[in-house]
Amino acid sequence: MRIIEGGVCAAKGFLAAGIAAGIKQKSNNRDLALIFSETPACAAGVFTTNKVKSACVTVSKEHLKNNKAQAIIVNSGNANCCTGPQGLLDAKQTAEAVASALNIAAQDVLVASTGVIGRPLPMGKIINGISQLSKRLSSLNSSEVAQAIMTTDTVQKESTVSFLLDGKVINVGGAAKGSGMLYPNMATMLCFITTDAVIEPAALKAALKLCVDKTFNCVSVDGDMSTNDMALILANGASGSERITLKTKGAFNKFTAALLEVTETLAKMLAKDGEGATKLVEVLIKGAASSADAKIATKAVCNSNLVKTAIYGQDANWGRIAAAVGSSAAKVDINHLSIYMGKVKILSKGKPTNVSEDILKKILSENEINITVDLGVGNGTAKMWTCDLSEEYIRINAKYRT
Amino acid sequence: MRIIEGGVCAAKGFLAAGIAAGIKQKSNNRDLALIFSETPACAAGVFTTNKVKSACVTVSKEHLKNNKAQAIIVNSGNANCCTGPQGLLDAKQTAEAVASALNIAAQDVLVASTGVIGRPLPMGKIINGISQLSKRLSSLNSSEVAQAIMTTDTVQKESTVSFLLDGKVINVGGAAKGSGMLYPNMATMLCFITTDAVIEPAALKAALKLCVDKTFNCVSVDGDMSTNDMALILANGASGSERITLKTKGAFNKFTAALLEVTETLAKMLAKDGEGATKLVEVLIKGAASSADAKIATKAVCNSNLVKTAIYGQDANWGRIAAAVGSSAAKVDINHLSIYMGKVKILSKGKPTNVSEDILKKILSENEINITVDLGVGNGTAKMWTCDLSEEYIRINAKYRT
Repeated sequence: MRIIEGGVCAAKGFLAAGIAAGIKQKSNNRDLALIFSETPACAAGVFTTNKVKSACVTVSKEHLKNNKAQAIIVNSGNANCCTGPQGLLDAKQTAEAVASALNIAAQDVLVASTGVIGRPLPMGKIINGISQLSKRLSSLNSSEVAQAIMTTDTVQKESTVSFLLDGKVINVGGAAKGSGMLYPNMATMLCFITTDAVIEPAALKAALKLCVDKTFNCVSVDGDMSTNDMALILANGASGSERITLKTKGAFNKFTAALLEVTETLAKMLAKDGEGATKLVEVLIKGAASSADAKIATKAVCNSNLVKTAIYGQDANWGRIAAAVGSSAAKVDINHLSIYMGKVKILSKGKPTNVSEDILKKILSENEINITVDLGVGNGTAKMWTCDLSEEYIRINAKYRT
Repeated sequence: MRIIEGGVCAAKGFLAAGIAAGIKQKSNNRDLALIFSETPACAAGVFTTNKVKSACVTVSKEHLKNNKAQAIIVNSGNANCCTGPQGLLDAKQTAEAVASALNIAAQDVLVASTGVIGRPLPMGKIINGISQLSKRLSSLNSSEVAQAIMTTDTVQKESTVSFLLDGKVINVGGAAKGSGMLYPNMATMLCFITTDAVIEPAALKAALKLCVDKTFNCVSVDGDMSTNDMALILANGASGSERITLKTKGAFNKFTAALLEVTETLAKMLAKDGEGATKLVEVLIKGAASSADAKIATKAVCNSNLVKTAIYGQDANWGRIAAAVGSSAAKVDINHLSIYMGKVKILSKGKPTNVSEDILKKILSENEINITVDLGVGNGTAKMWTCDLSEEYIRINAKYRT
């Protein structure tokens, strides 16, 4: 596997474009993007589990029923959520406008939105923008897509790899956005991935689900879950490789490894660029009674405002980590509990090791912090990524709409 | 029922004192307090459900087994948690020192601590302080207790009422501290209540549990649950009133109403004085499929960093309220969902009412904000208090220990 460049345009036969259509009211930044496959592609998606869903989620799920898609239209600056029946009509009309501009079926257009909830989509700007986008499509514009989906993100996020399958080069590339309202199942997150692999729908679905579970569903910024999250993948088969199915184990595993590399890279970029974040924090729970328990305990640490503010302050207040796992539903016995910062053990089976504050201070001064908690009661493990919590998070979110 | 003054010394036969024993390293504030009943009292307690518990929780639970106590010793500045076997010895030695100074049984001393986790109790300072406290006991010192239990609290918190039962005056008074790590079951919260009611253990326990569930367990500041929480009540019978039992319904209800007034007043003071808080927020969920569902949805709103930062910013970003309830496990159907800020309806069965931002801005400029969510799918209701989330919360918690 090789790390390459090119994002959603790295795979053969994919074109893209992103423009400023005037949807974002606070800036003139890009806010509308189109991804297009020159031939119909096998498609799969994973969506938010929030019961309050954007109209775009409803429409994209519906359009994915035949496991086929050829274009993705996405806007930032407006979530098209809690917008009533008009919101649904707007999402459908968006798909129809793309279909008409590209001469494809509306059923083959997937729709995504991110931004403020509860305001009607500015359809005039969107329709006009789609017309511009369709003329601008190119295989060189992947970064325009990465830019157009940004909301409070401070950096654009792309990841691309290629691998060889039976002598053929297969490319997998994606773009994603965070960066607040990030919480497993899923984050305020949009992710679009393209590949020229030849793959059957069942295998594509399985690979995407597996990779999302291990990556995006392991990122938490603030414990808030969005109404609009989705990860979409289009596989147009342009590589002419062997057909990947659930039965071609070797090929399936190679493809999944590539997809995992792309999604994990993007997931870590999301956590690192969490709103106001100054540090990427990786939390590993081991010795849990079960994997489920490990996951519960990891979430408790990653969602603790107190743990995250302490890391921001570079204060090794590890008691908050103990309190967080103890308050979770996971099996915890203080007499078996050990806590590490980096490789340094701070608590050993319930007893403080009295390691010097200077050593801990140095660990916490790094940009990437590793916290390991050994519950000491079994073999369950889980890993998750989060970030610290700073005043900047508050500033960003206190006046988001105004 | 009358609102009076006097806190933990309002009830007859109770003395108290609070001093600066040097446990708090950052200030010379009071950090050690003693509450004493001149006669053995009926006693009950409610404790944190965190599996990582302070040694003081273990000792106080043990000492409450006979439903009797005569003194409460409490320190701030050190939680005596994750301190290994030495922590347990220290908590026991603290009780013994109090017993010896007051010439009572160690079994009748309850111990409470709050502060930094993972550091050994400075026993020299505590033993020396207990000696000073025992000489300083007076019926005029309730506010010294309220001060000595403060950590990041900005105001001391006392509440006192009296009521007539069969011609006799009964007093109920308490002191409490917050103000971060506040989350149901329970908060980083200590609460000590004294009363001169004559009451049987079963009735005292039942009344305390009922009141804690309706008040302290309905406060959330940051979703973090402490290792040290406890609410303790001593009833010494000095009023000479009729004996309150579970069977004397009228008397039991009168007592519970008085206790509820004290605990609710303290609970709202806790939420209002949440770390960095500028506003008290009351969240009411109605129309839920069940009471349990209503509670789940209320917690989701109260624990949402995004909802709380928006309120801090006086930004009526109600979409975040919809997203929070939608992400909870409660039954939510967007087509039945209505949201109010104050008395103004913002979302009506899934459709925005397009109320003017000026009206909402005015509501959010107040110090107390009411949010009501009607799920529209049943009759379950629940109410909870929280506060907004400001930069000050981050500043307080980033450098708590240093």
